[in-house]
Amino acid sequence: MSSQFGSLFKIATFGESHGPAVGVILDGCPSGLAITEAEIQADLDRRRPGQNRLTTPRKEADTVRILSGVFEGRATGTPIAMVVENTDQRSHDYGDMQTLYRPSHADFTYDLKYGFRDYRGGGRSSARETIGRVAAGAVARKLLREACGTEIVAYVSQVGEIETGIDPLSVSLDAVEASLVRCPDPEASNRMEAAIDAARKDQDSLGGVIQLAIKRPPPAVGEPVFHRVEAELARAFLSLPATKGFEIGSGFAGTRLRGSAHNDVFVNKNGTIGTETNLSGGVQGGITNGEPILCRVAFKPTATVSQPQRTVDKAGHEAVLNAKGRHDPCVLPRAVVLVETMAALVLADLFLEQRARAGLFPVK
Amino acid sequence: MSSQFGSLFKIATFGESHGPAVGVILDGCPSGLAITEAEIQADLDRRRPGQNRLTTPRKEADTVRILSGVFEGRATGTPIAMVVENTDQRSHDYGDMQTLYRPSHADFTYDLKYGFRDYRGGGRSSARETIGRVAAGAVARKLLREACGTEIVAYVSQVGEIETGIDPLSVSLDAVEASLVRCPDPEASNRMEAAIDAARKDQDSLGGVIQLAIKRPPPAVGEPVFHRVEAELARAFLSLPATKGFEIGSGFAGTRLRGSAHNDVFVNKNGTIGTETNLSGGVQGGITNGEPILCRVAFKPTATVSQPQRTVDKAGHEAVLNAKGRHDPCVLPRAVVLVETMAALVLADLFLEQRARAGLFPVK
Amino acid sequence: MSSQFGSLFKIATFGESHGPAVGVILDGCPSGLAITEAEIQADLDRRRPGQNRLTTPRKEADTVRILSGVFEGRATGTPIAMVVENTDQRSHDYGDMQTLYRPSHADFTYDLKYGFRDYRGGGRSSARETIGRVAAGAVARKLLREACGTEIVAYVSQVGEIETGIDPLSVSLDAVEASLVRCPDPEASNRMEAAIDAARKDQDSLGGVIQLAIKRPPPAVGEPVFHRVEAELARAFLSLPATKGFEIGSGFAGTRLRGSAHNDVFVNKNGTIGTETNLSGGVQGGITNGEPILCRVAFKPTATVSQPQRTVDKAGHEAVLNAKGRHDPCVLPRAVVLVETMAALVLADLFLEQRARAGLFPVK
Amino acid sequence: MSSQFGSLFKIATFGESHGPAVGVILDGCPSGLAITEAEIQADLDRRRPGQNRLTTPRKEADTVRILSGVFEGRATGTPIAMVVENTDQRSHDYGDMQTLYRPSHADFTYDLKYGFRDYRGGGRSSARETIGRVAAGAVARKLLREACGTEIVAYVSQVGEIETGIDPLSVSLDAVEASLVRCPDPEASNRMEAAIDAARKDQDSLGGVIQLAIKRPPPAVGEPVFHRVEAELARAFLSLPATKGFEIGSGFAGTRLRGSAHNDVFVNKNGTIGTETNLSGGVQGGITNGEPILCRVAFKPTATVSQPQRTVDKAGHEAVLNAKGRHDPCVLPRAVVLVETMAALVLADLFLEQRARAGLFPVK
Repeated sequence: MSSQFGSLFKIATFGESHGPAVGVILDGCPSGLAITEAEIQADLDRRRPGQNRLTTPRKEADTVRILSGVFEGRATGTPIAMVVENTDQRSHDYGDMQTLYRPSHADFTYDLKYGFRDYRGGGRSSARETIGRVAAGAVARKLLREACGTEIVAYVSQVGEIETGIDPLSVSLDAVEASLVRCPDPEASNRMEAAIDAARKDQDSLGGVIQLAIKRPPPAVGEPVFHRVEAELARAFLSLPATKGFEIGSGFAGTRLRGSAHNDVFVNKNGTIGTETNLSGGVQGGITNGEPILCRVAFKPTATVSQPQRTVDKAGHEAVLNAKGRHDPCVLPRAVVLVETMAALVLADLFLEQRARAGLFPVK
Repeated sequence: MSSQFGSLFKIATFGESHGPAVGVILDGCPSGLAITEAEIQADLDRRRPGQNRLTTPRKEADTVRILSGVFEGRATGTPIAMVVENTDQRSHDYGDMQTLYRPSHADFTYDLKYGFRDYRGGGRSSARETIGRVAAGAVARKLLREACGTEIVAYVSQVGEIETGIDPLSVSLDAVEASLVRCPDPEASNRMEAAIDAARKDQDSLGGVIQLAIKRPPPAVGEPVFHRVEAELARAFLSLPATKGFEIGSGFAGTRLRGSAHNDVFVNKNGTIGTETNLSGGVQGGITNGEPILCRVAFKPTATVSQPQRTVDKAGHEAVLNAKGRHDPCVLPRAVVLVETMAALVLADLFLEQRARAGLFPVK
Repeated sequence: MSSQFGSLFKIATFGESHGPAVGVILDGCPSGLAITEAEIQADLDRRRPGQNRLTTPRKEADTVRILSGVFEGRATGTPIAMVVENTDQRSHDYGDMQTLYRPSHADFTYDLKYGFRDYRGGGRSSARETIGRVAAGAVARKLLREACGTEIVAYVSQVGEIETGIDPLSVSLDAVEASLVRCPDPEASNRMEAAIDAARKDQDSLGGVIQLAIKRPPPAVGEPVFHRVEAELARAFLSLPATKGFEIGSGFAGTRLRGSAHNDVFVNKNGTIGTETNLSGGVQGGITNGEPILCRVAFKPTATVSQPQRTVDKAGHEAVLNAKGRHDPCVLPRAVVLVETMAALVLADLFLEQRARAGLFPVK
Repeated sequence: MSSQFGSLFKIATFGESHGPAVGVILDGCPSGLAITEAEIQADLDRRRPGQNRLTTPRKEADTVRILSGVFEGRATGTPIAMVVENTDQRSHDYGDMQTLYRPSHADFTYDLKYGFRDYRGGGRSSARETIGRVAAGAVARKLLREACGTEIVAYVSQVGEIETGIDPLSVSLDAVEASLVRCPDPEASNRMEAAIDAARKDQDSLGGVIQLAIKRPPPAVGEPVFHRVEAELARAFLSLPATKGFEIGSGFAGTRLRGSAHNDVFVNKNGTIGTETNLSGGVQGGITNGEPILCRVAFKPTATVSQPQRTVDKAGHEAVLNAKGRHDPCVLPRAVVLVETMAALVLADLFLEQRARAGLFPVK
C-alpha cells in the first residue's frame, strides 16, 4: 500500500470510508504561502457527496481541519496535516459486501493482496480516499496561481454517448459550476443530466470523459526522461478510482494524422516563442513549452449498480449480489475536481524541481 | 533531468545520441537470476536501427557489454551496469539542427529548461536513450518469466488509419517478429507496410497504436492508492518518446458502456476465482487480479519529416527547416519492444514490493 | 522540510508544539499484524513529559487515537494514521522567544530557511515532533518482535561525567524502567539523578549518552553500498533533536586497536556461524550478521537553560534572553524510547526490503 | 543492494573489484556547470592505490572517462556517466578467499544475504566501489565552490594512538597533500607514518579518525525533521567501508559539558548573525547556520592483516586463513578524499532542495 505521492511537494493520505476520519499530510509546501481552511473547503465542497440530486445521497459535510503547518495564515514550511472526520457512517448491515465480491470492485484484489479487508463501504478503496488529495491539491493550486498565474479548469466533456465539442480554452470555472453535471455546454449538460437520470432509473450507471485545460502552466517543467510532464500526469490521473485511459494533445486521434499535419510550427508571439497549433498539448520532449496543457481522462461506468449481479464469495461459490449502499450513477461530475487536483499536485511538484536547478550556471 | 525509474527494481539510464555511449545501471535485481549478454542482445536487436528497410538507415550494432553485477552467469544482487558504445556518429554538418527548432521536437524545451543543449542528433531526447531501458527490461522480463511464468507480448495494432482486430491473447512473439511492421495480422501488416512506404515517399511520417498483452502476470501486485498497476504502466509508457495516450481494458471505448454491461462477473475457474469478461484489463482496485493485462499506447507520427517546415531560431526569427538526419517514417515497429520493456520494468518493481510484505502475518 | 522517513515501512509525521495536534501516517505496515492503541500508548507514556520530577512539568496525557488502517484489531495494509491532541498549550507570553534567538536552538536557522517561524514552544523544532515517530515505532517494534523475535532495549549509559559500565546485553526493559533516569545500574542511576537535580538547581542542563542493544535482529538486512545498517541507524539517530554523535560496535575507541585485536573471529555456534567477539556491533559489510547490534548515541546538554544568556534579535541587535518555558534539565531519560523507536523504524524498513528479493533464485 | 544516493543530486554507482569496470551515473547536475575530466581525475588520484609506499601496491591508473552529460565543456543537465576500467585484476589463486570467511569482512554477510558472492578481491564490498562516488563527488564539490564558495577540507587527525590537535580551520588542502599520511601537522604526520610502517612490519593494521572542515557551506540547507544536515552526513560517512562512528561539533566530548558552557552565543558579525563559539558544528535544528561545519569520522583498523587468523568456511568448519591479496595497513590516508566526497554529495543535494522552495513567498 503506497499512499505517498510527489517528490518535493509530497503528500501522504490516509483513511477509510467508514473509519473515524480521512486526511492528508502535505510535506514540502514552500513557506510564506497564504492558506485558509475556507480555500481548501471550497474544493472539498466540489467533491462532496450529496451536492445535488445527481450524486450519492450520502450526507457528509466533509469539513476540513488544519492541524499543523500553518501559522498566522501562512505556510510555515513544515508539514500541513488536514483531517476530515467521517460523520455519516451508517452502521447498517454489510452482509453481502462482507461475503461477496462486488464485480469490477476492489474487494477480491484487496483480499488477494492483504489477506482480509475492511469491507465497510469499500474501506480504503472507497472514493472517500480522495478527500486528502483534494485538500492538498487546493494548496498546490494556490501555489501555482500565486507563483505562475496558472489556471486549472476541468469539465465533463462526455457522458455515455453524449459529448460536447466546446473549446477547452473557452471554459471558465463559473461555467462549469453552473452545470449540475459540470459540463459547461448547456445543451450537452441537459442531455447528460437526462442520461444520468435514465441510468439511475434503470438501476444502472454511466461512464465518460473529463477534459482538462491548464492555462499559463509553469514553463520548462518536466524532468526527462522518466518524469516527463505527460508521464507524471498520466500516472496521477490513472491513480484515481475508475479511470481507464489518458491522452494528451492530439491523443489517440492524432495517431491517424501524418507528421506534416501533426507538427506544431514554432512562431514568434510578440517576442515569445510559441507554437501555431497545439497538438502537442503544451508539452514537448516531456517539458512544458508554455502553451496550454490539454488532456483527457476516461472514467468507466460506476461499478456499483443496484440491479442483481452474479458473482462468487471468498470460497469461490457462485452467488447473486444485491448491492445496497449509496452510490453515484455517474462519478464524472464529482471527479472534475479530482482531475484538477491531480494536475495541480503534479505541476507543483515539477515546478519545485525545476526551481531547484534553474538559473544556477547560465550559459551565454 | 531524472533518468531514474523504479523503487526496488531500479534503473538509472544515461547517454546521448552522438556521445561515446549509452547505457544503464540496474540496481535491485534479485541475486541468483541467470543472465547472459545474449538474452539482452536479443531485445536490443528488436529495437536496433537498420533492422530492415522500414527503419532508419542509421547503422548501429548496438552491442551490449555487462560491466558488473553478474558473476558466473548469475546476478550477484549488486548493480548491473550495461553499456552500448555509439559507433555510427556521423560528424556531418548539424547546421540547421543547431540553430533552428525542429517542430514538435524537444529542441526548444531543452533550451528553455537547460539553457543550451547537445544538438547532435537530438542529444538526450533521441530515442537512443531507450537502449538502456531495453537492456534492463530484458532482465526484468527474465525475472518475471522465471518467477511467475509471465509472458509479455506487444504488437502494432494500428498504423495511420489501418487497424487490425486480432485477439491480443492469440498473438505470439514469433508471429509478431514474422512481420516487418510487427503486426501479427498478415493482411493488416501488408497494408501498414505499404502505408509506411507511401509516407516515406511523400517525405512524411505516420503514427499508430501498440497493443500489449501480458499473460500470467504476477497476481496481487500494485500498491494503491497511488502506485496502482494502471498508474505505473501509464507513467511508464508516457515516458517513452512520441507517446500521446494510454488505455487499459475497455479504455476510452468503455466509457460509452453502462455499468451492467461493463462489469466483469466473478466466476470460479477450476478452483481459482477469475472473471468471465476482462474489461478491467487484468487490474481491479489498482491490483492485478490474475487475468491477462491488456492495454494500448498511442504514438504520434514521427516529428522528423524530410519536407521543408516553417519554424524559428533561438532568437525567435522565422526560418525554414530542411531536416537531414536519418529517421524512421514510422516508429511503431521499433517501439514494440519499448512497450514490452516498460511493462516488464513496472511489473518487476511491483512484484518485488508485493513480496516484501506478503505472507508475513496471515489472517485466518 | 522533509518529515517522511523510510522506503517500505514509511512514516510521515506532522505537528508543532503549540498547534492542535501532532501525529503520523504509517504507510507500508504488512497486513495482519495485530495492533492496539494500548501498545502504542505504552511507548508514548515512556516519552511523555511530566512522568516524574526529573522531566519537564508540562502536563500532557499524550493519548493516541488511531484514525485508519486497523480493522478488527489488525493492520489492513492501508495507511495507519495516529494522532495525539496537544492539550497543555499555555497561552502565556512568548515575548522573548518571539523576538530573540535562543542559543543553540533552531530559532535562527528556521527564520533563515523559512523566512518566519511558529515561535510558540519551538514550533516544529520542539521535541513534541517525536510523538509521531514513537507511535509508528511501536508498530515497527511489534512487527520485528512478531516476525523475528527481535528485542530492542536502550538505556542511559552516561549523564555528564557519570557513566555505567554495565553489559548492554544483560539489561532488561524492566531494569531500565525501574530507574527514574532510565539507567539500569542502580548506583550510577542514583548519581545521575543527583547530577540532574544539581544542574537544575544551578539553572543549567546536562547531556549524555544512550546505549542501544538489539538482540535477535533480523539477519541479512542492510542494503549496501549506501543503505548499510550502520548508515541508516546513524541517520535515524542523528535526526533526533540534540544528537551530536553515533558509534557502532567498537566505535571511536576501536580506532586505537590494531586489526589483529579488532577482528571478530568467525566460529561455529551450535551449527550457526557467528563471531567470537562482537566489535563489529552486529554488522559486517553493512549487513546484519545475526549477532546483537550494539551502538551509542551522544546527546548534547539541553539548550534551554533558565539562567540569562547573551544573544541577538532578528535585526542582529545584542540582547539578553531570559528563558521561561518548561524544559528538561536532561533529555536523556525521555530520549531512551526515541533511540529504540528510530532503531525499530530502520530495521523494519530494511527487513521488508530484504524480504522483497530473498529466496527468489537460490544458488546451489 | 542499493547503490543509489541523493534526492536531487542523485548518483548510482556500480562495479566490482575484479570486474571490467567501476563507475557512476550522476543525475541532476545543474546544466551549465563547467566540468573537465582533469578535475575529476584529480580527486580520483587522491583515492588511487599505489600512490606511495604507505598504500596498497595494487597498481591502477584509475583513469576516468566521461560517457555522457557534458557537451562543449559544460553539464547539459542530463545524466553524467563516468567509468573507470579495472586494469590490474591479477588472475591469481583466490583459494582461501573463495572458501573461507575473512574475519570482519563482508564475505559471510554477502553469502547470507545474496546466496553467493563474487569472491575476487571482495567483489562489490571492495573499496574500489568508492571510485564512482569520488568521481561524482568531484562534480558536487565544483558545484558548491562555484555557487557558494564552499571549501571542503578533510585530513587524518588520528592514527592508532597518535593524534594531532591542529585547528581544523587552519588547514589547507596543500598542507594535507604535503603529508604522505594526509595529516597536515608535520610532527604528528611523521609519527603516524612510523606507526603505519611498524604495523605493516608486524603484519598488522591501524585505524584512526578523519577530521572534516567545511568553510562557507551553503546556509539554510538541511530539511528537518529527518533530513537534517547532521543526519545526512552521518549516513553518508557511515556508508563508507570501515567506518564505525561519527560526531559533529562538540560530539561525544560535548556530552560532558553543561548547557551554559555548551551553548553557542549569537553575535552580530559585521552585519551578519553568527555564533561566538561553534560547538554546534555549523548546524542548528538540522539546518546550516553559516558557520563552518566541523565533524569527525572513525575508521576501524583494516580488516585484512597478513598474519594467520582463525575462521570458518561456508559449511561452518573451523580453519586458518592466510590472507594474500594486496591491502593498505591503514586506510585513513586514502579515505580523506572519501570523506570530502560524501560531504560534497550531501551538501549539493541539500543545497538544490533548499533552492527548490527558497524565496517563493517572502514574509515581510
